[in-house]
Amino acid sequence: MSTKTDEKGLVIVHTGKGKGKSSAAFGMIFRCIAHQLPCAVVQFIKGGMDTGERNLVTAHFGDICQFHTMGEGFTWETQDRERDIAAATAAWEKAKELIRDERYHMVLLDEINIALRYGYIPLDEVIAFLETEKPEMTHVVLTGRNAADELIEIADLVTEMALVKHPFRSGIKAQIGVEF
Amino acid sequence: MSTKTDEKGLVIVHTGKGKGKSSAAFGMIFRCIAHQLPCAVVQFIKGGMDTGERNLVTAHFGDICQFHTMGEGFTWETQDRERDIAAATAAWEKAKELIRDERYHMVLLDEINIALRYGYIPLDEVIAFLETEKPEMTHVVLTGRNAADELIEIADLVTEMALVKHPFRSGIKAQIGVEF
Repeated sequence: MSTKTDEKGLVIVHTGKGKGKSSAAFGMIFRCIAHQLPCAVVQFIKGGMDTGERNLVTAHFGDICQFHTMGEGFTWETQDRERDIAAATAAWEKAKELIRDERYHMVLLDEINIALRYGYIPLDEVIAFLETEKPEMTHVVLTGRNAADELIEIADLVTEMALVKHPFRSGIKAQIGVEF
Repeated sequence: MSTKTDEKGLVIVHTGKGKGKSSAAFGMIFRCIAHQLPCAVVQFIKGGMDTGERNLVTAHFGDICQFHTMGEGFTWETQDRERDIAAATAAWEKAKELIRDERYHMVLLDEINIALRYGYIPLDEVIAFLETEKPEMTHVVLTGRNAADELIEIADLVTEMALVKHPFRSGIKAQIGVEF
């Protein structure tokens, strides 16, 4: 019975149509910060995580947690596929650099599933990188709707956030602290 | 078409067997902190949220976010139902006090669903309080597995965190930053 005995870096996926995918991932980053473990966040889409959140982390814990937001103003609504691909590719290059650096306990690739879904970065390359180049002890967290089956297949921990009930349906607008 | 036009305080539930219920709720608390909005957390069970997380918030943002952990050492494994009920009741009394105080933008009742499930605090009283005494603009977040149907019924926003895949099943133990 060798269960619960090994330690290793995990590939963690948060997907589904519900809320909390980025927030829960950010909660894990915050735990790393609380334990003084170096970590990093790459945001593949603007708005997946709140800028206030990022600014607060950068101001207070910038020595422990690196933040990289690619394509500022990049909202997948630019109608400029070449520019979107360039931004996503730059984010992925930065992600690889951070993951390869064994100092980082955890690297969060926020909303990368969206970039994969749009075909802005190649899924097979991401899968191959995670399987062959991720350092053994590094945790990588990938968030966003519509996680690819191939990603779920290689992941160690997958959580689906399912929407059960949403106030937008009953006329309530997005609110500070809840939606952003 | 009056959709997305009203603001009001929401009753938010995070439930399900998957991970991220507390982390995502904590992410919302962190957003409040980032926006300098006073908020509070009442922990109904030890371990729902990491003590490192709590200590970090208390140390850096104690002026914006209050933390109350009830029954330190209280893990639902005490085999002492009277003591458990007393601790849960004290937590609920504190929760009511915080929610009634309109200065708080958001109050997180972490793992309260467990206390409700065990019958340590009366569900009908919690439902009635949320429906009649919660200030209009206050957000209340309730987390924990097995949310009661009556709670889901009155909630504005419900997310179910579903477990798709978990590493404990393949022999990996709980790890810092991921599980605690």
